[in-house]
Amino acid sequence: MLQREAVLQVEAGADYVDVNVGTFVDQEEALMRWAVEMIQDGTEVPLCIDSADPNVVEAGLQACRKRAIVNSISGERSRFDDLIGIVKKHDTAVIGLTMDDSGIPEDAEGLVEKGGALLENLLAQGVSAADIYLDPLVRPVSTGPGVGLIVIRAIERLKRTFEDVQVVCGLSNISYGLPRRSLLNGAFLVAAVSAGLDAAILDPLDGSLMGLLRAAEAVLGHDAYCLDYIRAYRDGRL
Amino acid sequence: MLQREAVLQVEAGADYVDVNVGTFVDQEEALMRWAVEMIQDGTEVPLCIDSADPNVVEAGLQACRKRAIVNSISGERSRFDDLIGIVKKHDTAVIGLTMDDSGIPEDAEGLVEKGGALLENLLAQGVSAADIYLDPLVRPVSTGPGVGLIVIRAIERLKRTFEDVQVVCGLSNISYGLPRRSLLNGAFLVAAVSAGLDAAILDPLDGSLMGLLRAAEAVLGHDAYCLDYIRAYRDGRL
Repeated sequence: MLQREAVLQVEAGADYVDVNVGTFVDQEEALMRWAVEMIQDGTEVPLCIDSADPNVVEAGLQACRKRAIVNSISGERSRFDDLIGIVKKHDTAVIGLTMDDSGIPEDAEGLVEKGGALLENLLAQGVSAADIYLDPLVRPVSTGPGVGLIVIRAIERLKRTFEDVQVVCGLSNISYGLPRRSLLNGAFLVAAVSAGLDAAILDPLDGSLMGLLRAAEAVLGHDAYCLDYIRAYRDGRL
Repeated sequence: MLQREAVLQVEAGADYVDVNVGTFVDQEEALMRWAVEMIQDGTEVPLCIDSADPNVVEAGLQACRKRAIVNSISGERSRFDDLIGIVKKHDTAVIGLTMDDSGIPEDAEGLVEKGGALLENLLAQGVSAADIYLDPLVRPVSTGPGVGLIVIRAIERLKRTFEDVQVVCGLSNISYGLPRRSLLNGAFLVAAVSAGLDAAILDPLDGSLMGLLRAAEAVLGHDAYCLDYIRAYRDGRL
Protein backbone atom coordinates (compact mmCIF):
# COMPACT_ATOMS: atom_id res chain seq x y z
CA MET A 1 0.00 0.00 0.00
CA LEU A 2 2.58 2.55 1.16
CA GLN A 3 5.05 1.64 -1.57
CA ARG A 4 2.36 1.67 -4.22
CA GLU A 5 1.17 5.11 -3.06
CA ALA A 6 4.74 6.44 -3.32
CA VAL A 7 5.24 4.98 -6.79
CA LEU A 8 1.96 6.50 -7.95
CA GLN A 9 2.96 9.89 -6.50
CA VAL A 10 6.26 9.80 -8.38
CA GLU A 11 4.53 8.77 -11.60
CA ALA A 12 2.14 11.69 -11.09
CA GLY A 13 5.05 14.12 -10.96
CA ALA A 14 6.25 14.30 -7.32
CA ASP A 15 9.87 15.54 -7.03
CA TYR A 16 10.07 14.35 -3.41
CA VAL A 17 7.88 12.00 -1.40
CA ASP A 18 6.91 13.31 2.05
CA VAL A 19 7.07 10.58 4.69
CA ASN A 20 5.02 11.20 7.82
CA VAL A 21 3.99 8.46 10.22
CA GLY A 22 2.82 10.80 12.95
CA THR A 23 -0.55 9.12 13.39
CA PHE A 24 1.28 6.28 15.18
CA VAL A 25 2.85 8.20 18.04
CA ASP A 26 4.15 5.30 20.09
CA GLN A 27 5.96 3.59 17.26
CA GLU A 28 6.88 6.60 15.17
CA GLU A 29 10.64 5.95 15.13
CA ALA A 30 10.44 2.32 14.03
CA LEU A 31 7.67 3.06 11.54
CA MET A 32 9.63 5.93 9.99
CA ARG A 33 12.61 3.65 9.42
CA TRP A 34 10.37 0.96 7.92
CA ALA A 35 8.48 3.44 5.70
CA VAL A 36 11.69 5.00 4.37
CA GLU A 37 13.11 1.57 3.47
CA MET A 38 9.86 0.42 1.93
CA ILE A 39 9.42 3.52 -0.25
CA GLN A 40 13.03 3.41 -1.44
CA ASP A 41 12.62 -0.21 -2.48
CA GLY A 42 9.86 0.98 -4.83
CA THR A 43 11.13 4.28 -6.20
CA GLU A 44 14.34 6.26 -6.60
CA VAL A 45 12.88 9.67 -5.78
CA PRO A 46 14.42 11.51 -2.79
CA LEU A 47 12.42 11.80 0.42
CA CYS A 48 11.16 14.52 2.70
CA ILE A 49 11.38 13.27 6.32
CA ASP A 50 8.38 14.76 8.09
CA SER A 51 8.21 14.74 11.88
CA ALA A 52 8.41 17.17 14.78
CA ASP A 53 10.37 14.58 16.81
CA PRO A 54 14.17 14.80 16.31
CA ASN A 55 14.63 11.09 17.04
CA VAL A 56 12.15 10.18 14.34
CA VAL A 57 13.84 12.54 11.87
CA GLU A 58 17.23 11.03 12.69
CA ALA A 59 15.88 7.49 12.29
CA GLY A 60 14.42 8.41 8.90
CA LEU A 61 17.60 10.08 7.68
CA GLN A 62 19.77 7.13 8.73
CA ALA A 63 17.71 4.98 6.37
CA CYS A 64 17.76 7.48 3.45
CA ARG A 65 19.82 6.45 0.45
CA LYS A 66 19.69 9.90 -1.15
CA ARG A 67 20.03 13.45 0.08
CA ALA A 68 16.75 14.30 1.87
CA ILE A 69 14.77 17.28 3.10
CA VAL A 70 13.92 17.62 6.78
CA ASN A 71 10.33 18.77 7.39
CA SER A 72 10.57 20.82 9.55
CA ILE A 73 12.72 23.05 11.69
CA SER A 74 11.41 26.35 13.10
CA GLY A 75 12.52 29.34 15.13
CA GLU A 76 11.33 27.66 18.33
CA ARG A 77 14.50 27.46 20.39
CA SER A 78 14.34 23.82 21.47
CA ARG A 79 13.17 22.56 18.08
CA PHE A 80 15.93 24.49 16.34
CA ASP A 81 18.60 23.27 18.74
CA ASP A 82 17.42 19.66 18.55
CA LEU A 83 17.25 19.54 14.76
CA ILE A 84 20.08 21.72 13.48
CA GLY A 85 22.76 19.17 14.43
CA ILE A 86 20.86 16.41 12.63
CA VAL A 87 20.43 18.56 9.51
CA LYS A 88 24.16 19.33 9.45
CA LYS A 89 25.28 15.77 10.25
CA HIS A 90 23.20 14.32 7.41
CA ASP A 91 23.78 17.27 5.06
CA THR A 92 20.09 17.67 4.23
CA ALA A 93 17.97 20.46 2.87
CA VAL A 94 15.43 21.78 5.38
CA ILE A 95 11.97 23.26 5.56
CA GLY A 96 11.81 26.12 8.08
CA LEU A 97 8.51 27.24 9.59
CA THR A 98 8.27 31.03 9.92
CA MET A 99 7.45 30.94 13.64
CA ASP A 100 9.23 30.88 16.98
CA ASP A 101 8.49 30.48 20.69
CA SER A 102 6.12 33.47 20.58
CA GLY A 103 3.86 31.50 18.22
CA ILE A 104 2.68 31.93 14.62
CA PRO A 105 2.62 35.57 13.47
CA GLU A 106 -0.81 36.98 12.62
CA ASP A 107 0.27 39.05 9.59
CA ALA A 108 2.52 38.89 6.53
CA GLU A 109 5.12 41.24 8.05
CA GLY A 110 5.43 38.98 11.09
CA LEU A 111 5.81 35.85 8.96
CA VAL A 112 8.55 37.52 6.91
CA GLU A 113 10.32 38.76 10.05
CA LYS A 114 10.31 35.32 11.68
CA GLY A 115 11.33 33.78 8.36
CA GLY A 116 14.26 36.20 8.14
CA ALA A 117 15.41 35.44 11.67
CA LEU A 118 15.25 31.69 11.04
CA LEU A 119 17.07 32.08 7.74
CA GLU A 120 19.85 34.02 9.46
CA ASN A 121 20.23 31.33 12.12
CA LEU A 122 20.34 28.57 9.51
CA LEU A 123 22.92 30.43 7.39
CA ALA A 124 25.00 31.08 10.53
CA GLN A 125 25.02 27.31 11.08
CA GLY A 126 26.42 26.79 7.62
CA VAL A 127 23.25 25.64 5.84
CA SER A 128 23.31 27.09 2.32
CA ALA A 129 20.42 29.29 1.13
CA ALA A 130 19.71 26.93 -1.76
CA ASP A 131 18.93 24.19 0.79
CA ILE A 132 16.47 26.29 2.80
CA TYR A 133 12.72 26.26 2.13
CA LEU A 134 10.77 28.76 4.23
CA ASP A 135 7.19 27.70 5.00
CA PRO A 136 4.81 30.55 5.94
CA LEU A 137 2.35 28.21 7.66
CA VAL A 138 -0.96 27.95 5.84
CA ARG A 139 -3.94 27.91 8.21
CA PRO A 140 -7.58 27.02 7.41
CA VAL A 141 -9.37 29.89 5.67
CA SER A 142 -12.51 28.82 7.53
CA THR A 143 -10.94 30.26 10.70
CA GLY A 144 -10.82 33.84 9.39
CA PRO A 145 -11.20 35.80 6.17
CA GLY A 146 -7.64 37.17 6.03
CA VAL A 147 -5.80 33.93 6.69
CA GLY A 148 -5.20 32.95 3.05
CA LEU A 149 -4.23 36.37 1.77
CA ILE A 150 -1.71 36.81 4.61
CA VAL A 151 0.19 33.78 3.37
CA ILE A 152 0.02 34.93 -0.28
CA ARG A 153 1.44 38.33 0.73
CA ALA A 154 4.06 36.62 2.88
CA ILE A 155 5.17 34.47 -0.07
CA GLU A 156 5.56 37.59 -2.25
CA ARG A 157 7.58 39.38 0.41
CA LEU A 158 9.75 36.39 1.33
CA LYS A 159 10.70 36.00 -2.35
CA ARG A 160 11.35 39.73 -2.74
CA THR A 161 13.29 40.09 0.53
CA PHE A 162 15.43 36.93 0.42
CA GLU A 163 16.33 36.32 -3.18
CA ASP A 164 18.19 33.04 -2.85
CA VAL A 165 15.78 31.28 -0.57
CA GLN A 166 12.92 29.04 -1.64
CA VAL A 167 9.39 29.19 -0.34
CA VAL A 168 7.24 26.11 0.20
CA CYS A 169 3.83 25.54 1.71
CA GLY A 170 1.70 22.67 2.85
CA LEU A 171 -1.38 23.13 0.74
CA SER A 172 -4.28 21.18 2.14
CA ASN A 173 -4.51 23.04 5.45
CA ILE A 174 -6.14 25.97 3.63
CA SER A 175 -9.34 24.02 2.97
CA TYR A 176 -9.67 22.23 6.31
CA GLY A 177 -13.31 21.94 7.37
CA LEU A 178 -14.77 23.08 4.02
CA PRO A 179 -16.45 21.19 1.17
CA ARG A 180 -14.86 20.54 -2.26
CA ARG A 181 -11.40 20.91 -0.76
CA SER A 182 -9.62 20.27 -4.04
CA LEU A 183 -11.17 23.43 -5.51
CA LEU A 184 -9.95 25.59 -2.62
CA ASN A 185 -6.53 23.91 -2.63
CA GLY A 186 -6.31 24.58 -6.38
CA ALA A 187 -7.29 28.24 -6.15
CA PHE A 188 -4.84 28.80 -3.31
CA LEU A 189 -2.06 26.96 -5.16
CA VAL A 190 -2.47 29.12 -8.28
CA ALA A 191 -2.44 32.34 -6.23
CA ALA A 192 0.64 31.10 -4.34
CA VAL A 193 2.53 30.11 -7.51
CA SER A 194 1.67 33.50 -8.98
CA ALA A 195 3.12 35.08 -5.82
CA GLY A 196 6.37 33.16 -6.29
CA LEU A 197 5.92 29.84 -4.48
CA ASP A 198 8.71 27.41 -5.40
CA ALA A 199 7.36 24.14 -4.01
CA ALA A 200 4.26 22.73 -2.38
CA ILE A 201 3.45 19.74 -0.23
CA LEU A 202 0.34 18.40 -1.93
CA ASP A 203 -1.39 15.28 -3.17
CA PRO A 204 -0.03 14.66 -6.69
CA LEU A 205 -2.74 12.03 -7.19
CA ASP A 206 -5.37 14.81 -7.19
CA GLY A 207 -5.71 15.03 -10.97
CA SER A 208 -7.73 18.24 -11.09
CA LEU A 209 -5.24 19.97 -8.77
CA MET A 210 -2.30 18.87 -10.91
CA GLY A 211 -4.10 19.89 -14.12
CA LEU A 212 -4.71 23.34 -12.67
CA LEU A 213 -1.07 23.57 -11.55
CA ARG A 214 0.08 22.76 -15.09
CA ALA A 215 -2.32 25.40 -16.44
CA ALA A 216 -0.92 27.92 -13.94
CA GLU A 217 2.66 27.14 -14.98
CA ALA A 218 1.59 27.70 -18.60
CA VAL A 219 -0.22 31.04 -18.14
CA LEU A 220 2.44 32.36 -15.73
CA GLY A 221 5.27 31.72 -18.16
CA HIS A 222 7.02 28.92 -16.25
CA ASP A 223 6.28 26.55 -19.12
CA ALA A 224 7.69 28.14 -22.26
CA TYR A 225 5.29 27.86 -25.19
CA CYS A 226 3.10 25.61 -23.04
CA LEU A 227 5.04 22.53 -24.13
CA ASP A 228 4.60 20.69 -20.81
CA TYR A 229 0.92 21.61 -20.77
CA ILE A 230 0.37 20.29 -24.29
CA ARG A 231 2.33 17.12 -23.48
CA ALA A 232 0.21 16.57 -20.35
CA TYR A 233 -2.91 17.01 -22.49
CA ARG A 234 -1.70 14.48 -25.04
CA ASP A 235 -0.85 12.00 -22.27
CA GLY A 236 -4.35 12.37 -20.81
CA ARG A 237 -3.06 14.05 -17.65
CA LEU A 238 -5.21 17.20 -17.84
CA MET B 1 -31.58 31.54 -28.09
CA LEU B 2 -29.94 34.90 -27.40
CA GLN B 3 -32.42 35.83 -24.70
CA ARG B 4 -32.17 32.43 -23.09
CA GLU B 5 -28.35 32.66 -23.08
CA ALA B 6 -28.55 36.05 -21.35
CA VAL B 7 -31.01 34.81 -18.74
CA LEU B 8 -28.79 31.80 -18.04
CA GLN B 9 -25.75 34.06 -17.69
CA VAL B 10 -27.56 36.24 -15.16
CA GLU B 11 -28.77 33.22 -13.23
CA ALA B 12 -25.18 31.97 -13.18
CA GLY B 13 -24.03 35.21 -11.54
CA ALA B 14 -23.26 37.73 -14.32
CA ASP B 15 -23.40 41.36 -13.10
CA TYR B 16 -23.51 42.67 -16.68
CA VAL B 17 -24.22 40.91 -19.97
CA ASP B 18 -21.71 41.69 -22.74
CA VAL B 19 -23.45 42.21 -26.10
CA ASN B 20 -21.24 41.74 -29.16
CA VAL B 21 -22.61 41.07 -32.63
CA GLY B 22 -19.30 41.65 -34.41
CA THR B 23 -19.46 38.43 -36.39
CA PHE B 24 -22.13 40.05 -38.59
CA VAL B 25 -20.16 43.05 -39.89
CA ASP B 26 -22.64 44.29 -42.51
CA GLN B 27 -25.64 44.39 -40.21
CA GLU B 28 -23.90 45.11 -36.93
CA GLU B 29 -25.84 48.29 -36.11
CA ALA B 30 -29.31 46.81 -36.63
CA LEU B 31 -28.36 43.57 -34.92
CA MET B 32 -26.97 45.38 -31.90
CA ARG B 33 -30.26 47.28 -31.49
CA TRP B 34 -32.24 44.05 -31.86
CA ALA B 35 -29.98 42.14 -29.44
CA VAL B 36 -30.16 44.83 -26.76
CA GLU B 37 -33.97 44.93 -26.95
CA MET B 38 -34.26 41.16 -26.93
CA ILE B 39 -31.98 40.69 -23.92
CA GLN B 40 -33.73 43.42 -21.94
CA ASP B 41 -37.07 41.77 -22.56
CA GLY B 42 -35.68 38.69 -20.80
CA THR B 43 -33.61 40.10 -17.95
CA GLU B 44 -33.16 43.27 -15.93
CA VAL B 45 -29.36 43.11 -15.69
CA PRO B 46 -27.43 46.06 -17.16
CA LEU B 47 -25.52 45.60 -20.40
CA CYS B 48 -22.01 46.03 -21.69
CA ILE B 49 -22.15 47.30 -25.28
CA ASP B 50 -19.24 45.69 -27.07
CA SER B 51 -18.11 47.00 -30.45
CA ALA B 52 -15.19 48.89 -31.97
CA ASP B 53 -17.62 50.79 -34.24
CA PRO B 54 -18.96 54.05 -32.68
CA ASN B 55 -22.20 53.84 -34.67
CA VAL B 56 -22.88 50.36 -33.33
CA VAL B 57 -22.11 51.49 -29.77
CA GLU B 58 -24.46 54.46 -30.16
CA ALA B 59 -27.22 52.25 -31.57
CA GLY B 60 -26.84 49.86 -28.64
CA LEU B 61 -26.85 52.63 -26.04
CA GLN B 62 -29.96 54.23 -27.53
CA ALA B 63 -31.80 50.98 -26.88
CA CYS B 64 -30.43 50.50 -23.33
CA ARG B 65 -32.96 50.92 -20.53
CA LYS B 66 -30.30 51.00 -17.80
CA ARG B 67 -26.93 52.63 -17.38
CA ALA B 68 -24.49 50.63 -19.50
CA ILE B 69 -20.76 50.06 -19.94
CA VAL B 70 -19.09 50.80 -23.26
CA ASN B 71 -16.59 48.13 -24.33
CA SER B 72 -14.26 49.68 -25.33
CA ILE B 73 -12.44 52.94 -25.75
CA SER B 74 -8.62 53.13 -26.05
CA GLY B 75 -5.81 55.62 -26.34
CA GLU B 76 -5.94 55.40 -30.14
CA ARG B 77 -6.69 58.98 -31.15
CA SER B 78 -9.56 58.41 -33.59
CA ARG B 79 -11.20 55.73 -31.44
CA PHE B 80 -10.99 57.97 -28.38
CA ASP B 81 -12.38 60.98 -30.23
CA ASP B 82 -15.18 58.98 -31.83
CA LEU B 83 -16.32 57.34 -28.61
CA ILE B 84 -15.79 59.88 -25.84
CA GLY B 85 -18.76 62.00 -26.92
CA ILE B 86 -21.02 58.95 -26.97
CA VAL B 87 -19.85 57.88 -23.50
CA LYS B 88 -20.55 61.37 -22.13
CA LYS B 89 -23.86 61.80 -23.93
CA HIS B 90 -25.23 58.51 -22.57
CA ASP B 91 -23.48 58.84 -19.18
CA THR B 92 -22.03 55.34 -19.33
CA ALA B 93 -19.16 53.58 -17.61
CA VAL B 94 -16.36 52.62 -19.97
CA ILE B 95 -13.72 49.95 -20.51
CA GLY B 96 -10.41 51.48 -21.62
CA LEU B 97 -7.80 49.40 -23.41
CA THR B 98 -4.25 50.22 -22.29
CA MET B 99 -2.96 50.90 -25.80
CA ASP B 100 -2.71 53.79 -28.25
CA ASP B 101 -1.73 54.46 -31.86
CA SER B 102 1.74 53.02 -31.23
CA GLY B 103 0.14 49.63 -30.58
CA ILE B 104 -0.08 47.27 -27.60
CA PRO B 105 2.84 47.65 -25.17
CA GLU B 106 5.08 44.60 -24.81
CA ASP B 107 5.67 44.88 -21.06
CA ALA B 108 3.84 45.65 -17.82
CA GLU B 109 5.41 49.11 -17.49
CA GLY B 110 4.17 50.05 -20.95
CA LEU B 111 0.64 48.80 -20.23
CA VAL B 112 0.54 50.85 -17.01
CA GLU B 113 1.92 53.92 -18.77
CA LYS B 114 -0.68 53.74 -21.56
CA GLY B 115 -3.36 53.01 -18.99
CA GLY B 116 -2.35 56.09 -17.02
CA ALA B 117 -2.41 58.32 -20.10
CA LEU B 118 -5.86 57.03 -21.09
CA LEU B 119 -7.12 57.47 -17.54
CA GLU B 120 -5.92 61.05 -17.50
CA ASN B 121 -7.69 61.79 -20.80
CA LEU B 122 -10.92 60.23 -19.56
CA LEU B 123 -10.81 62.13 -16.28
CA ALA B 124 -10.10 65.37 -18.20
CA GLN B 125 -13.30 64.69 -20.16
CA GLY B 126 -15.28 64.47 -16.93
CA VAL B 127 -15.64 60.67 -16.70
CA SER B 128 -15.38 59.71 -13.04
CA ALA B 129 -12.72 57.22 -11.92
CA ALA B 130 -15.38 54.90 -10.51
CA ASP B 131 -16.79 54.53 -14.04
CA ILE B 132 -13.47 53.61 -15.65
CA TYR B 133 -12.32 50.01 -16.11
CA LEU B 134 -8.81 49.68 -17.50
CA ASP B 135 -8.22 46.56 -19.59
CA PRO B 136 -4.57 45.48 -19.95
CA LEU B 137 -5.25 43.41 -23.05
CA VAL B 138 -4.82 39.69 -22.50
CA ARG B 139 -3.12 37.96 -25.42
CA PRO B 140 -2.82 34.21 -26.08
CA VAL B 141 -0.11 32.61 -23.95
CA SER B 142 0.60 30.28 -26.87
CA THR B 143 2.20 33.27 -28.62
CA GLY B 144 4.98 33.72 -26.06
CA PRO B 145 5.96 32.60 -22.57
CA GLY B 146 5.84 36.01 -20.90
CA VAL B 147 2.47 37.14 -22.25
CA GLY B 148 0.35 36.02 -19.28
CA LEU B 149 2.69 37.19 -16.53
CA ILE B 150 2.97 40.64 -18.15
CA VAL B 151 -0.76 41.14 -17.71
CA ILE B 152 -0.72 39.84 -14.11
CA ARG B 153 2.08 42.29 -13.28
CA ALA B 154 0.22 45.08 -15.09
CA ILE B 155 -2.94 44.40 -13.04
CA GLU B 156 -0.91 44.64 -9.79
CA ARG B 157 0.69 47.89 -10.85
CA LEU B 158 -2.48 49.47 -12.23
CA LYS B 159 -4.22 48.79 -8.90
CA ARG B 160 -1.25 50.10 -6.92
CA THR B 161 -0.70 53.19 -9.09
CA PHE B 162 -4.31 54.30 -9.66
CA GLU B 163 -6.21 53.57 -6.48
CA ASP B 164 -9.70 54.56 -7.56
CA VAL B 165 -9.74 52.89 -10.93
CA GLN B 166 -11.00 49.40 -11.66
CA VAL B 167 -9.23 46.77 -13.71
CA VAL B 168 -11.02 44.34 -16.00
CA CYS B 169 -9.86 41.77 -18.49
CA GLY B 170 -11.32 39.63 -21.21
CA LEU B 171 -10.39 36.19 -20.04
CA SER B 172 -10.69 33.68 -22.84
CA ASN B 173 -8.01 35.19 -25.07
CA ILE B 174 -5.33 33.75 -22.78
CA SER B 175 -6.10 30.19 -23.88
CA TYR B 176 -6.63 30.77 -27.60
CA GLY B 177 -5.28 27.88 -29.66
CA LEU B 178 -4.70 25.54 -26.69
CA PRO B 179 -6.57 22.48 -25.40
CA ARG B 180 -8.68 22.39 -22.21
CA ARG B 181 -9.17 26.16 -22.40
CA SER B 182 -11.32 26.32 -19.27
CA LEU B 183 -8.37 25.10 -17.19
CA LEU B 184 -6.08 27.84 -18.53
CA ASN B 185 -8.81 30.48 -18.22
CA GLY B 186 -9.36 29.38 -14.62
CA ALA B 187 -5.69 29.46 -13.65
CA PHE B 188 -5.28 32.89 -15.23
CA LEU B 189 -8.43 34.19 -13.55
CA VAL B 190 -7.25 33.12 -10.09
CA ALA B 191 -3.82 34.72 -10.61
CA ALA B 192 -5.51 37.90 -11.88
CA VAL B 193 -7.95 38.10 -8.96
CA SER B 194 -5.04 37.58 -6.59
CA ALA B 195 -3.26 40.47 -8.34
CA GLY B 196 -6.29 42.73 -7.77
CA LEU B 197 -8.56 42.23 -10.80
CA ASP B 198 -12.00 43.80 -10.16
CA ALA B 199 -14.02 42.36 -13.04
CA ALA B 200 -13.67 39.88 -15.88
CA ILE B 201 -15.44 39.28 -19.17
CA LEU B 202 -15.96 35.53 -19.06
CA ASP B 203 -18.45 32.77 -19.68
CA PRO B 204 -20.50 32.47 -16.47
CA LEU B 205 -21.99 29.23 -17.81
CA ASP B 206 -18.59 27.56 -17.45
CA GLY B 207 -19.32 25.85 -14.15
CA SER B 208 -15.79 24.76 -13.36
CA LEU B 209 -14.51 28.29 -14.02
CA MET B 210 -17.15 29.81 -11.74
CA GLY B 211 -16.49 27.20 -9.04
CA LEU B 212 -12.81 28.04 -9.13
CA LEU B 213 -13.60 31.76 -9.00
CA ARG B 214 -15.73 31.21 -5.89
CA ALA B 215 -12.91 29.19 -4.34
CA ALA B 216 -10.46 32.00 -5.15
CA GLU B 217 -12.75 34.59 -3.54
CA ALA B 218 -12.86 32.35 -0.44
CA VAL B 219 -9.13 31.72 -0.06
CA LEU B 220 -8.22 35.35 -0.90
CA GLY B 221 -10.49 36.75 1.79
CA HIS B 222 -13.09 38.40 -0.50
CA ASP B 223 -15.73 36.05 0.87
CA ALA B 224 -15.71 36.45 4.66
CA TYR B 225 -15.90 33.10 6.45
CA CYS B 226 -16.53 31.46 3.04
CA LEU B 227 -20.26 32.03 3.34
CA ASP B 228 -20.81 32.50 -0.42
CA TYR B 229 -18.66 29.46 -1.12
CA ILE B 230 -20.61 27.29 1.30
CA ARG B 231 -23.92 28.59 -0.11
CA ALA B 232 -22.75 27.81 -3.67
CA TYR B 233 -21.84 24.29 -2.50
CA ARG B 234 -25.25 23.76 -0.90
CA ASP B 235 -26.96 25.02 -4.08
CA GLY B 236 -24.96 22.56 -6.18
CA ARG B 237 -23.04 25.34 -7.93
CA LEU B 238 -19.52 24.12 -7.12
